[in-house]
Amino acid sequence: MKTYLDCFPCFLSQALRAARIATDDEKKIKQVLDAVGMMLKDIPLESTPPESGRLIYRKVSEVTGILDPYKKIKAESTEKALALYPSLKSLVQKSDNRLLTAARIAIAGNVIDFGANWNFDLEAEIKEILKKEFAIGDFHTFQNSLDEAGEVLYIGDNAGECVFDRILIEEIKKPVVYVVRDAPIINDATYDDAVAAGIERVATILSSGTDGPGTILETCSAEFLSVYHSAECIISKGQGNYEALSNENRPLFFLLKTKCPVIAKDIGVEEGSIILKGGDIPHEDS
Amino acid sequence: MKTYLDCFPCFLSQALRAARIATDDEKKIKQVLDAVGMMLKDIPLESTPPESGRLIYRKVSEVTGILDPYKKIKAESTEKALALYPSLKSLVQKSDNRLLTAARIAIAGNVIDFGANWNFDLEAEIKEILKKEFAIGDFHTFQNSLDEAGEVLYIGDNAGECVFDRILIEEIKKPVVYVVRDAPIINDATYDDAVAAGIERVATILSSGTDGPGTILETCSAEFLSVYHSAECIISKGQGNYEALSNENRPLFFLLKTKCPVIAKDIGVEEGSIILKGGDIPHEDS
Repeated sequence: MKTYLDCFPCFLSQALRAARIATDDEKKIKQVLDAVGMMLKDIPLESTPPESGRLIYRKVSEVTGILDPYKKIKAESTEKALALYPSLKSLVQKSDNRLLTAARIAIAGNVIDFGANWNFDLEAEIKEILKKEFAIGDFHTFQNSLDEAGEVLYIGDNAGECVFDRILIEEIKKPVVYVVRDAPIINDATYDDAVAAGIERVATILSSGTDGPGTILETCSAEFLSVYHSAECIISKGQGNYEALSNENRPLFFLLKTKCPVIAKDIGVEEGSIILKGGDIPHEDS
Repeated sequence: MKTYLDCFPCFLSQALRAARIATDDEKKIKQVLDAVGMMLKDIPLESTPPESGRLIYRKVSEVTGILDPYKKIKAESTEKALALYPSLKSLVQKSDNRLLTAARIAIAGNVIDFGANWNFDLEAEIKEILKKEFAIGDFHTFQNSLDEAGEVLYIGDNAGECVFDRILIEEIKKPVVYVVRDAPIINDATYDDAVAAGIERVATILSSGTDGPGTILETCSAEFLSVYHSAECIISKGQGNYEALSNENRPLFFLLKTKCPVIAKDIGVEEGSIILKGGDIPHEDS
């Protein structure tokens, strides 16, 4: 996805939010805004938003001296999500279509996002998403792709959300490689966050190599790119990965909730929609 | 009022909105964002928001080449407000307290604002504001001040809103000097807008001399400052004038709706509140 004009005020809002999490020092926060303001002219509309997000959040760390402002928030998200795990598992067990319910749960977990949105009621969101109609719902194609794939590449998004991803992985019944960010960025899941969510019990955890808030292929490791380019079925969670990968010609399935009006418009749905969207493959159903 | 950290993303949002009204050329709009981003570092937290708004909206005009992007919107606002004038007059005539009803109508007119807020349903807003409790309502002090003043200085805010101001002026029954901006800025009322609203029939129109979106005293004319400093009762309409004058030690009454969370917090009320707030004078009632 390209960078839209509306992304620019949002870049500044995100920098402000992250700076406030990193420090109480108003002068330092102002320095962050000044520095990010100066960066805007170097952000081309042709770049993807995570490419800029990567530079902006790095700048917040540089100015405030706090490398991982969301560390505590991430740990709390994981703890909260783990407490919900038994009841979410029970929902899957009681459901008529376990894979579909698990996919919905994985999408519900995508509300744990301190980038675009940071005001959410996790349990209310889960309840809503479990019964909400998909705005784009390529579920049968998704199911077929999973059936045919020997292995599934699952690109994670946020800490805490990993627990919800685990529930979907447990229904996939195929070897899964679970991809995390290489370094802390916003509340995105890193190796440690995936382990804390119990992902290592159900999948092989692989770093994408990027330190951006999305799978920015130019910044990914050769190891990840090799797995990515040979993958038969790729699950891409969340907005950041959508922004980075939406123009890719790969067997991608984007699972997300549209929490940002610009991304919703890019996909062609309303804000707040739930999406299970096949990328490179035909949409046979909805 | 000082500039708060939250004002900075809003400066960029406002620049984007104004640039979009001025032009469809995405590259030009991006140039506006780039230029405004570069300006942020020169905006001190100690300045008032209209001081920066003045420079930012000038930059929009400079980059787009459009001096008065809101010209058409202003004319439409005035036309729409004039169409409501007879029914608003009739509300005043039927009311138990004509001055209070007229003051409420003047505040209702303050929703016509393309700076902080640009999504409004004028008739619905009027209906709501006419029955809404004041969050701060120094009405009796206001009434006493009007009774005692030989002349009233009325600092207007937006085009269209002038028509609503006219209704209040018609109930003041004292000579009124109505103050407008010296040059077009956002949808703020200039001399022509006040005349189009019929203000010259009920008051003497005076330019403040400023080309900013608020009465930034440092940029006002000597003529205005002389009237301002000797005024016995000053009505200050809207957010921009509040931001510029809130720390002034003058017999000010701020009439506005808080459409911005930062201003609401500065005043100590909820967003969306209606305010008739005495400045320099004791609050004997609420």
